[in-house]
Amino acid sequence: MNAEIIAVGTELLLGDILNTNAQYLARQLAGLGFTVWHQSVVGDNPQRLAQLAQQARQRSQLVIYSGGLGPTADDLTKETIAAAYGDTLRFDEEQYKRIADYFTASGRSVPANNRKQAMVPVHGRTLQNDNGTAPGVVFEQDSRMAILLPGPPKELVPMFEKQVRPLLETLQDGVLYSRILRVYGIGESRLEELVGHLLEGSNPTAALYAKTAEVTVRVTAKGDTLEQAKTLCGQLADEFYRLLGDAVYDEGEEGMEKTVVQLYSRKGMQLATAESCTGGLVSQRITSVPGSSDMFQCGVCSYANQVKARLLAVRQPTLDRFGAVSLQVAGQMALGVRALARADVGVGITGIAGPGGGSEEKPVGLVYIGAASKEGVWVYKMLLPGRSRDTVRWAASQKALDMARRLAAGLPLADCVHCSDAQLDREV
Amino acid sequence: MNAEIIAVGTELLLGDILNTNAQYLARQLAGLGFTVWHQSVVGDNPQRLAQLAQQARQRSQLVIYSGGLGPTADDLTKETIAAAYGDTLRFDEEQYKRIADYFTASGRSVPANNRKQAMVPVHGRTLQNDNGTAPGVVFEQDSRMAILLPGPPKELVPMFEKQVRPLLETLQDGVLYSRILRVYGIGESRLEELVGHLLEGSNPTAALYAKTAEVTVRVTAKGDTLEQAKTLCGQLADEFYRLLGDAVYDEGEEGMEKTVVQLYSRKGMQLATAESCTGGLVSQRITSVPGSSDMFQCGVCSYANQVKARLLAVRQPTLDRFGAVSLQVAGQMALGVRALARADVGVGITGIAGPGGGSEEKPVGLVYIGAASKEGVWVYKMLLPGRSRDTVRWAASQKALDMARRLAAGLPLADCVHCSDAQLDREV
Repeated sequence: MNAEIIAVGTELLLGDILNTNAQYLARQLAGLGFTVWHQSVVGDNPQRLAQLAQQARQRSQLVIYSGGLGPTADDLTKETIAAAYGDTLRFDEEQYKRIADYFTASGRSVPANNRKQAMVPVHGRTLQNDNGTAPGVVFEQDSRMAILLPGPPKELVPMFEKQVRPLLETLQDGVLYSRILRVYGIGESRLEELVGHLLEGSNPTAALYAKTAEVTVRVTAKGDTLEQAKTLCGQLADEFYRLLGDAVYDEGEEGMEKTVVQLYSRKGMQLATAESCTGGLVSQRITSVPGSSDMFQCGVCSYANQVKARLLAVRQPTLDRFGAVSLQVAGQMALGVRALARADVGVGITGIAGPGGGSEEKPVGLVYIGAASKEGVWVYKMLLPGRSRDTVRWAASQKALDMARRLAAGLPLADCVHCSDAQLDREV
Repeated sequence: MNAEIIAVGTELLLGDILNTNAQYLARQLAGLGFTVWHQSVVGDNPQRLAQLAQQARQRSQLVIYSGGLGPTADDLTKETIAAAYGDTLRFDEEQYKRIADYFTASGRSVPANNRKQAMVPVHGRTLQNDNGTAPGVVFEQDSRMAILLPGPPKELVPMFEKQVRPLLETLQDGVLYSRILRVYGIGESRLEELVGHLLEGSNPTAALYAKTAEVTVRVTAKGDTLEQAKTLCGQLADEFYRLLGDAVYDEGEEGMEKTVVQLYSRKGMQLATAESCTGGLVSQRITSVPGSSDMFQCGVCSYANQVKARLLAVRQPTLDRFGAVSLQVAGQMALGVRALARADVGVGITGIAGPGGGSEEKPVGLVYIGAASKEGVWVYKMLLPGRSRDTVRWAASQKALDMARRLAAGLPLADCVHCSDAQLDREV
């Protein structure tokens, strides 16, 4: 079954925002077994939108639209697409009540133009928006379907997951089943050498996606039954586990922070963070996971040396001798925050994220990451010259989380220096 | 003059990569004064590409293609587009020598299929690729132009900057100038009521873009000279300032964190943060800005009450009486971290980001945000029921940054409760 993706919005045509919805939807449709031949962007212009809608309706059985469902006068998507699928809109009291509740719950009055969002199809169906005011819409005529989703990804993604995916699954023959393996610590090229031969099959299939400081592997199988698809998928996934070992840190859409929060919660352990160049990125990632409050009780961002010394008990002679960006200070920060928070594991990060602050001896992109448990402290030296500030910070946070994971799971930290607190006053 | 953007590549249709070229090209074309009505993605399929090329040639005077210029068999873009503009290709010895040199310079032999990249237009012109092997191509017929650029951004961007931009400048009359105003504290609907009448003009133009917890306004003007465009743009921008006042917190592409870092740096002031439900999001945003290390020396994430009490001097009787999520505790956290860090301003955030942890009295989405200076403490009560954890956290971080901005800039905090430290032990 073929499908196409249309994003509506002048802000995309102007380049004001990046069309991440197109990638998200493309990946989902591919995963569901739809063939996508076209993606387009069109502005908030009824005539050009109507033209494209007619063309898309002819060439694609399924068309997914994103954007253009807002309350403002230039949002005409719903009316225009309704016409292309022989449908019309009516005002829906219940929908309006939902929208009104959304405003009144936060003590605001309902702007008059939000009445527009309460218009729903006469024949088609409405998709509830749990994260905003614009409902989604499904139009269907002569086995041709259009699905309209709100533009903001934080509204579109949950609506797709909860309401659109189950609908699309009913349109396909056979059952698809996918697993996403998340891999950290092996670069994309090396990974391709290790598992390249597993990427050739047609059912099950596997594909690699490089992200910042990790790679995901998507394994997908099609079967007559879910059971059959799961079995096929499982066989190929096992091969990846055999070759990649504990570099596969988890499965699913979510990142290392979720893995760490779940692991520590399950074990009843606590983690504490002391961050200099990452400035709270690790604690922010951890606390972005619901339920993190039991395993994470304390994080300190210590840019200033005096804060490192006062709160984290980093020793002044160590700062003087080795400098704030050093293996020794990273180790002492990890130990210090572990003691301060009375946690099982403490991590400490100090480095030069750039663009300023580098020297020949300590260049931009140099970061030391420490992780301390009751068995001492491990420190990793990371060097990423020429990368952006964001990339350096993200990569450091990812390594810190992986070290925290390894300490809690009893996995080796083979690429780190292991030492005792006393050794952190000396050359290591 | 109207233009459109077409990306060629099956990997885009599958969602394997994000189409950043489309955003880059859209922004460049808008900046050069081209009107872009369509963006599309099509796979490496000659028939569908030819169809789209014909359609694009009819409706757009300029079409910019990216991708599909590689050496592999499925890269047929050049041949297909040549046909649409009445051109053909010939093998070019000089071009081939450039490609061969590219390989031999790194000690490799030239793959046979790279001969394909040495095919150049008979009538059109060739654009040199300084960062890869695929040259770009320009086809032109009957005042219709197609420009083909290589897909990798590190090849496309320099080729555009050096060779395409000068070419396009010769096609345009007049000069465009844009300003982006960033607005916080007024919702999109309300904003449209206030400034809707300013969005109607044709030159200068203005448009609103809603983001999470802020709205941006893009004002654009066209003039015969840059001076004239700037003046026109400035007149309309002034109208927005007149109506929106200090809700316009800055101009440009970057967010509130940059504004705050620059303001504090300029004034030689220091900011400190104490975060509970945002868990380091504010400190992470601040430290994402290069140069923040002088104005931000200390942040504390204090999930546990004992950390709030021990590090931030939040008083135990206050915690017992009002609970950790209370106006009183937010205020004491702000004062506490200000004292701990010896900073000019401290902010404190405590709330329930969800999805768990809410009660009838203190529902999910309730957040108190405090900001303390030497003149006491201001606390804001934010209530965002039904929003996702990410939205609640982001909105709270945005409010905290705005309160920090207002304290440093001497602007009013009219929607906050103002009290002294002593008052924070009592009902407020």
